[in-house]
Amino acid sequence: MPRYAYVNGQYLPHRDAMVHVEDRGFQFADGVYEVVTVQDGRLVDEEGHLNRLNRSLGELQMASPMASRTALELVMRTLIRRNGVVNGIIYLQVTRGVAPRDFRYPSRTKPTLVMTTRHMDLNPVARLERGVAVITMPDIRWKRRDIKSVALLPQAMGKQMAAEAGAFEGWMVDDDGTITEGCSSNAWIVTDDNVLVTREPTTRILNGITRQSVLRLAADEGIGFEERPFSVAEARAAKEAFLTSATTYVTPVTQIDGETIGDGLPGRLARRLRQAYWQYAAGDHADVQAAKGP
Amino acid sequence: MPRYAYVNGQYLPHRDAMVHVEDRGFQFADGVYEVVTVQDGRLVDEEGHLNRLNRSLGELQMASPMASRTALELVMRTLIRRNGVVNGIIYLQVTRGVAPRDFRYPSRTKPTLVMTTRHMDLNPVARLERGVAVITMPDIRWKRRDIKSVALLPQAMGKQMAAEAGAFEGWMVDDDGTITEGCSSNAWIVTDDNVLVTREPTTRILNGITRQSVLRLAADEGIGFEERPFSVAEARAAKEAFLTSATTYVTPVTQIDGETIGDGLPGRLARRLRQAYWQYAAGDHADVQAAKGP
Repeated sequence: MPRYAYVNGQYLPHRDAMVHVEDRGFQFADGVYEVVTVQDGRLVDEEGHLNRLNRSLGELQMASPMASRTALELVMRTLIRRNGVVNGIIYLQVTRGVAPRDFRYPSRTKPTLVMTTRHMDLNPVARLERGVAVITMPDIRWKRRDIKSVALLPQAMGKQMAAEAGAFEGWMVDDDGTITEGCSSNAWIVTDDNVLVTREPTTRILNGITRQSVLRLAADEGIGFEERPFSVAEARAAKEAFLTSATTYVTPVTQIDGETIGDGLPGRLARRLRQAYWQYAAGDHADVQAAKGP
Repeated sequence: MPRYAYVNGQYLPHRDAMVHVEDRGFQFADGVYEVVTVQDGRLVDEEGHLNRLNRSLGELQMASPMASRTALELVMRTLIRRNGVVNGIIYLQVTRGVAPRDFRYPSRTKPTLVMTTRHMDLNPVARLERGVAVITMPDIRWKRRDIKSVALLPQAMGKQMAAEAGAFEGWMVDDDGTITEGCSSNAWIVTDDNVLVTREPTTRILNGITRQSVLRLAADEGIGFEERPFSVAEARAAKEAFLTSATTYVTPVTQIDGETIGDGLPGRLARRLRQAYWQYAAGDHADVQAAKGP
């Protein structure tokens, strides 16, 4: 259990970190969030995550919880330091704040800002050596999946369904039979011609920050890619498959719905991109670093 | 501001009613709720609401927050009495409880139970004399709208959009052009032949408890009805329109997307059903009372 959580200006013992029952995050899922990974004390893709947080807030006409990004970054660093996080994550949640329950947005409510941290093994060897299994399931989510809101009930249901099937992740399938993304990650395949395929960012998926960095790393490494939808059948027949997220980086997928992908071992490009992302996360990848601006 | 709120076994001053920041209701919208109206001290359609609460919990494999319904009902009555609610509402929210953040359901977490109350004018004369305006908007919600979850962000967005357009409610329109329901109410129209039309309960709408009672009252009064989808065009050309919800009972709709419905005044059947529901809520409608069992 981490020692401290940040809630609206205060660093509180984790067990005392509370929000009001009429917080709109609790009553209406009227809030957004980000998860930023800490690797060797360094915040990974921080700028991308904070840019996306601002975008989510903007899409929901929600006010920023702090006067400046510098102030926000200071709080993040303070909490990470106080909790002694070297490898792990920091979780940020912003809600529209506390107001008497009414669907309509309250006019002058102060946003709620909460941060928590967690220690985490960023290099789970067993998972990476064997790859992970995914199952496919209908995508039952709303139509604004580009907003990183806390209305995550369908994703929680999907992830639970995957867990009960012994799978690491659920890949969600839209009405047209194409895979949108994982419950908490983006979905990728590799064609026979060694081209990466991942869905283009529209309102149908969340545009992963790790996803975007991996696309830049692929370009940097001379790996071809296409941003387009792909079907479940194409995924099952793919040469490789993998998933990306802030906490799992690039993770090879070796089974989809019980069918073995490729030769059943983590694919060559997945392993190469994981290595590249790890170095990038460590700050060793100067080119991509420079290119990651707003 | 009400005096007390109920949180997990305690009656707390409203301002001190808090939940933990890692409550799954706050982080994942992993919770369900009900709103029960209190008219002249009497809980309206209580059995229907508590039955639906149980159904929502079951659909999400969520445990009941209390050992028995009798115990739950006792807490509801105690809070209503302590807050002196004669006319108003009691709000109940159940979440999967507090657990370290993980999409998958935690295995042994105690559910969170929160209740609040509010005083309310159940007979807002101006609104009833003129009827209300609604606008139509795309239904962007998920596919399990039959579960009364707190993942209400799309409804909050819709209700805000309606408010900004000067409308009381938003009627949401599915991909096929049919109206599903209002952001926080069910949608009804009346045909030229004086037949009520409201959508049949599937996963595409929340099966309103007031909706169900009004259908029974209509049958009781010899008013014909059809449960089927209807288009925006059919609604705009309808003889009458109205909406139903726990807090607004039967409320006449006199404008849809700026178009006047009927003669622009609350319709005859809407007024008649409102009157019937009011009497039913007051406990004066013995037949329907007897028929409302589980």
